[in-house]
Amino acid sequence: MKVTLVLIILMFSHFSGASDRAFSGLSATESDPKKMDWMVGFPPSSNKLIMQPESDFFSFPKLRWTVCHIRQLMPTKQVSRGIGAPSSLNYDIDKNIDSLTFKPLGSEHEMTWNESLLANYTDGILILHKGQIVYEKYFGCLEENGKHAAMSMTKSLTGLIAEILVAEGKLDEGATASSIIPELSDSGFGSATVRQIMDMTSALDYSEDYSDPQADIWLYSKAASPLPKPADYRGPNGYIEYLQTVKKEGSHGEAFGYKTINTDALGWIIARVTGKDVAQLFSERIWSKIGAEQDGYMTVDAKGMPFAGGGLSASLRDLGRIGSLMLNRGKLNGRSLFPETVVESIIAGGDKTAFAKAGYNTLPGGSYKSMWWVFHNEHGAYAARGVHGQTIYIDPAADMVIVRFSSFPTAKNSKIDPTSLPAYQVVAEYLKNKKVKN
Amino acid sequence: MKVTLVLIILMFSHFSGASDRAFSGLSATESDPKKMDWMVGFPPSSNKLIMQPESDFFSFPKLRWTVCHIRQLMPTKQVSRGIGAPSSLNYDIDKNIDSLTFKPLGSEHEMTWNESLLANYTDGILILHKGQIVYEKYFGCLEENGKHAAMSMTKSLTGLIAEILVAEGKLDEGATASSIIPELSDSGFGSATVRQIMDMTSALDYSEDYSDPQADIWLYSKAASPLPKPADYRGPNGYIEYLQTVKKEGSHGEAFGYKTINTDALGWIIARVTGKDVAQLFSERIWSKIGAEQDGYMTVDAKGMPFAGGGLSASLRDLGRIGSLMLNRGKLNGRSLFPETVVESIIAGGDKTAFAKAGYNTLPGGSYKSMWWVFHNEHGAYAARGVHGQTIYIDPAADMVIVRFSSFPTAKNSKIDPTSLPAYQVVAEYLKNKKVKN
Repeated sequence: MKVTLVLIILMFSHFSGASDRAFSGLSATESDPKKMDWMVGFPPSSNKLIMQPESDFFSFPKLRWTVCHIRQLMPTKQVSRGIGAPSSLNYDIDKNIDSLTFKPLGSEHEMTWNESLLANYTDGILILHKGQIVYEKYFGCLEENGKHAAMSMTKSLTGLIAEILVAEGKLDEGATASSIIPELSDSGFGSATVRQIMDMTSALDYSEDYSDPQADIWLYSKAASPLPKPADYRGPNGYIEYLQTVKKEGSHGEAFGYKTINTDALGWIIARVTGKDVAQLFSERIWSKIGAEQDGYMTVDAKGMPFAGGGLSASLRDLGRIGSLMLNRGKLNGRSLFPETVVESIIAGGDKTAFAKAGYNTLPGGSYKSMWWVFHNEHGAYAARGVHGQTIYIDPAADMVIVRFSSFPTAKNSKIDPTSLPAYQVVAEYLKNKKVKN
Repeated sequence: MKVTLVLIILMFSHFSGASDRAFSGLSATESDPKKMDWMVGFPPSSNKLIMQPESDFFSFPKLRWTVCHIRQLMPTKQVSRGIGAPSSLNYDIDKNIDSLTFKPLGSEHEMTWNESLLANYTDGILILHKGQIVYEKYFGCLEENGKHAAMSMTKSLTGLIAEILVAEGKLDEGATASSIIPELSDSGFGSATVRQIMDMTSALDYSEDYSDPQADIWLYSKAASPLPKPADYRGPNGYIEYLQTVKKEGSHGEAFGYKTINTDALGWIIARVTGKDVAQLFSERIWSKIGAEQDGYMTVDAKGMPFAGGGLSASLRDLGRIGSLMLNRGKLNGRSLFPETVVESIIAGGDKTAFAKAGYNTLPGGSYKSMWWVFHNEHGAYAARGVHGQTIYIDPAADMVIVRFSSFPTAKNSKIDPTSLPAYQVVAEYLKNKKVKN
């Protein structure tokens, strides 16, 4: 049962509240999926197979293979790049970055940037400075032509689409969810505004108490599974049916509560407003416009609805292109994809007081806005974050984007941040002060 | 039960022997999936949903939506195009083709080419002449940036890979299967040669009697399903386990028998010899080398093995590129991807006597070689064929390739050929005699 619980924690990318789980203690090198020979051979030996159920394929260290192979285990929907040529990326690799040092949060012992990559079970890392790639490495299951699970970074792209629709006047952030989706009237979402859902300050009776077999997270995961339901299953089928069953608890707008169901509600709102699901919109609004070099894809529920809260897999460089798009406030390759106000709204941040109540020790003074994590630091940095250490970290002051895919054994950024956030900061300072060759 | 039977006939793309099924009688226009609003809305209304089980999603007319959306219903593996720019294609559209007329087999009433497209429930049609696209149209679920189920055309690409490996000396066509895969020793495949398996003249005790609930086809389909098995399931799981259970019946090499399991055995042989499955090889040997503009993908079993006998989905133009590659005997875009002997072996054809025993009325004098259908007509034409009317039809004398995706209601090419083969022939004659502008 423990394993199953852990799996669904992972699968649904819940950011906090997950209790630590025991894992085998393998280091990044020891757990390297290439070294472990997962799925090698025809057939693979039985102890090297990775397959359903999720409790198997999302358990560490198998997890480190799975993050690059979600589509082989689940039905998915394409996020099309279109059929043209990809945009070119310029390189100016900086070999000094590896030896930059920093002190992990809560530690007095210095660590190099290079050491931090293994500490964080990094699968792919890309640093863009002034629009050029200054650093790029692949580890574990990932290669330059591969894709990796973005998990909760998906939320930030869903939030971005919502902000674009708000800026275009197609979505009223002050409207209640029930005014857009009448089926949500009797649910906890019904009286929440679009903005409250976008910022996760909705007040929902939604439990992530993994020790409680009746907790909502279990019902949610059963409803969301794309696999056929058991014959005796009588619960909701799919995101849309599940969301209607969520009840209200407390008052909207008072506290930040990181609940993935907000993003799926937002995905439904976006779909109702536009007639297109988020996979289509990611393609139309982003992938097909940025010169992406690979398609992305999203997991779907049994009725084909993409998992707006965590279902995306994508390539490292394409997320780098998206980071550049954000850094340049909607402009990329000489095109403007959306109004500057979209990014301005995000970087302004959310309600810091509401955020503080959630007690994220590694993110003091931060906030959450439109599904982006805003650090409110001196550089104006903000990020998309996934539960195994994935990030798109945007530092406007340093004109820098860091994209990282990783497969940290536990689903807790509070364990990953200490060797990540100060590392990003030291690279940012270095690049900010670097004299660029002409 | 009837519906389930039909589904699996469709799913596994068996070419012949399937009894007619009653279908709703909707025309191509009436059954146009765009018109039928499948999966439209959030949520779609219950009568517009297409989802598991297969008996639902592969039933006509839903089938006409499903052929473009396999990945949303099943786990799949990517056939990567790589990350470069696609190769360009030149157009010289010929508007005369639509009005070319022919007499369908067994009919005295003339039909135009254009009329044949609807008669065959065409979803996409591409004609290349002297390397230029002279005709291209999309219908139903397919658009230029979409992908369609190739079904049994997958076999021809598996056969092509095998021929390439033979030409390179990596695969001995005279070797028995058991000498390459000892696990097949006790099976019907064990004593068959690679060549007999490639040409489907192996002698296998494999029943496709759909009226028999104990027929092998049912065991095969259960084994091949990527979905988790029922708790009480005790049968083989996956292609590899299933193939080992197939028994011999008769003598190898005497008669052609169209049995998809031959292709999956060939896929396994190829994987054992190369260390790579057919999805990887399709990518490495074909997609990444032809300037493909889209990735393809393949369905997989529960252990990640791609369905070599029918699992591919791909774009129309990329199959056009593959047709050109075949027409040019391995050369494309100035590169040689494999020795000319590969195509020479295929177009030489298989054993006509063995083929005649199978009684394909629409293919008199034909043969089957390396999973390609060889017509042995005056033009030296040969083809990949899928069970709902899909084809890559290559006519060397006319310097012509026709690629067609379609979703004919019944899984019988004997019903589709009468309005297809003479239509291809009349276009070939027209193009062969056409004066090309300079």
